[in-house]
Amino acid sequence: MNLQNIRAYAAHADNQHLVPYEISRRDLGANDVLIKIDYCGVCHTDIHFVKNHFGNTVYPIVPGHEIIGHVIDVGSQVTGFSNNDIVGVGVIVDSCHQCSSCEQGYEQFCEQGMTTAYNSPDPHTGGVTYGGYSSHIVVDAKSVLKVSEKLNTYAAAPLLCAGITSFAPLNRYQVNTGDKVGIIGLGGLGHMGVKFAAAMGAHVVMITSSEKKGADAIRLGAHEVLLSTDQAAMQEHTNSFDLLLNTIPVEHDFSCYLDLLKINQTMVVVGLASMKMHAAKLIFGQKRVAGSLIGGIEETQQMLDFCAEHNITADVELINIKDVNEAYHRIEHGEVMYRVVIDMATLK
Amino acid sequence: MNLQNIRAYAAHADNQHLVPYEISRRDLGANDVLIKIDYCGVCHTDIHFVKNHFGNTVYPIVPGHEIIGHVIDVGSQVTGFSNNDIVGVGVIVDSCHQCSSCEQGYEQFCEQGMTTAYNSPDPHTGGVTYGGYSSHIVVDAKSVLKVSEKLNTYAAAPLLCAGITSFAPLNRYQVNTGDKVGIIGLGGLGHMGVKFAAAMGAHVVMITSSEKKGADAIRLGAHEVLLSTDQAAMQEHTNSFDLLLNTIPVEHDFSCYLDLLKINQTMVVVGLASMKMHAAKLIFGQKRVAGSLIGGIEETQQMLDFCAEHNITADVELINIKDVNEAYHRIEHGEVMYRVVIDMATLK
Repeated sequence: MNLQNIRAYAAHADNQHLVPYEISRRDLGANDVLIKIDYCGVCHTDIHFVKNHFGNTVYPIVPGHEIIGHVIDVGSQVTGFSNNDIVGVGVIVDSCHQCSSCEQGYEQFCEQGMTTAYNSPDPHTGGVTYGGYSSHIVVDAKSVLKVSEKLNTYAAAPLLCAGITSFAPLNRYQVNTGDKVGIIGLGGLGHMGVKFAAAMGAHVVMITSSEKKGADAIRLGAHEVLLSTDQAAMQEHTNSFDLLLNTIPVEHDFSCYLDLLKINQTMVVVGLASMKMHAAKLIFGQKRVAGSLIGGIEETQQMLDFCAEHNITADVELINIKDVNEAYHRIEHGEVMYRVVIDMATLK
Repeated sequence: MNLQNIRAYAAHADNQHLVPYEISRRDLGANDVLIKIDYCGVCHTDIHFVKNHFGNTVYPIVPGHEIIGHVIDVGSQVTGFSNNDIVGVGVIVDSCHQCSSCEQGYEQFCEQGMTTAYNSPDPHTGGVTYGGYSSHIVVDAKSVLKVSEKLNTYAAAPLLCAGITSFAPLNRYQVNTGDKVGIIGLGGLGHMGVKFAAAMGAHVVMITSSEKKGADAIRLGAHEVLLSTDQAAMQEHTNSFDLLLNTIPVEHDFSCYLDLLKINQTMVVVGLASMKMHAAKLIFGQKRVAGSLIGGIEETQQMLDFCAEHNITADVELINIKDVNEAYHRIEHGEVMYRVVIDMATLK
């Protein structure tokens, strides 16, 4: 296996379109797992990096952090994985494993900075990391996740980012049978939130401004739809929610949602948005707004195991990698229900 | 004792100045305590109501919800209080005692609406309640608090609102020896926050934009001052705080403070301000912003007992009630360090 020359799709600085590209991968180290990538989910974050929206993109960039594949080789020290195991790789491909954050299982907040699947300084090569829009990836075994054979593998890819992002707050706030949980916004994150909260036994309310999305949320497992534009309905649900998961990624007024929470309860935000609210909305009712970022490695494995137990995957469109630029366009226009996954067998 | 005619100071709609006024109090009921008021603290909220800033003031209004007095009579069913007991009355003078909030000890969020010390519908009289700028008050024994004789009584008055507002979040988030706690803003609430956090054993950092206030915070018990205008110092304290208590009551950007928190930690806001922040500040580090409103009756008693144990009172100016309008002016201009208390013996 010559890892020095592997096929990938990369975007370049000039036109920011994804095109075939050849990259070098690092040699297999003693603690590494070599993965043949079968599927890679397309995350909105990929688009932000390809288009340099954060201003820190290193071109050429190979995106992709929702990776499903199978093991084809392991380093001499690796004990937990064998050839042909189905595995997943998400945002985190390495961290220091020694700081207080890592020790608490929050590798995403590693004090040395986690190494992300792509566009991250790569201590092994001295360059940057390349993500899952490629035929193979070499990852330290500590960051490789086991994926049950029970799951539909291609639909499992988005679990590695959209899945854990929605699961972690619901899990951390211990959503349980009978809790009333509101999922705000129905996109990639929201549709996973509905599935998880329902599987945890909650009474799930989809909170959306779109009647059409509301109907689809019921199909996904929501028990009720609350139209955020319906003042009377919003009033009826005042002080009744045990948890809100806000997935809206654009600036909006958060105040009206805070009214929905019971006293002492929390709205978790996972969408990167500019927030406005009046402190009175928090003070009267001792309410909270909390952030959440993906999840640690152990939490992600827990999520994948939960998915296997409850047969949860994402609703996806499987595409040929040649169509990835067009898929980006549709994702940006909200036309995808709810995630796009690239069939890496199409990477010739 | 003729309670039908007692002396008070009230503000009227026309000029919103406090002037001598005669009010009626209700008769002593079986569960009531009759209190001769010795001292009443002036809270900024009093000013908001006197000036109808919330648009719901019922004139004439008798403000005051930081009441210290002594018992002069008790109803036939009252067992916990006797004549001459030193007692306190805060914001909450009644609640339903039956709803879920009351049962959890959060009378301030009573689902029927708590009855506040003043400007609240009074189920006993059919009118509105009158507060502590008066010679006497009749309060249901369930809302009367015991004040230790060890405490300087007049300086204890502000504990009933400013005190509990600062104590409750520090207590609820279990501030303990060695925790690094930041108190943002040094006014009535902030100066109590410094004293409480220090008594709980925390390393207390006063976060302020004023060097002068910083120096005074040290006198009050803070161990360190962090000037919020000093970018390098703010940077040095990044990700280092276990809890922040934000007492600033005016609109400001909350983002810079969130950077100071360790992962998974909380900034509690107690100042009624319009808030702006970017969700990224919460998401990266799984941080939280929470509100807190005074405290329940049991929590308030706990705070008063803590004060007796640690000899904590407010730093106050004791004034003649004739000077209360001038005191309002100074409070509004931030010229008071840190609370004003009316000597009710001056109410002739």
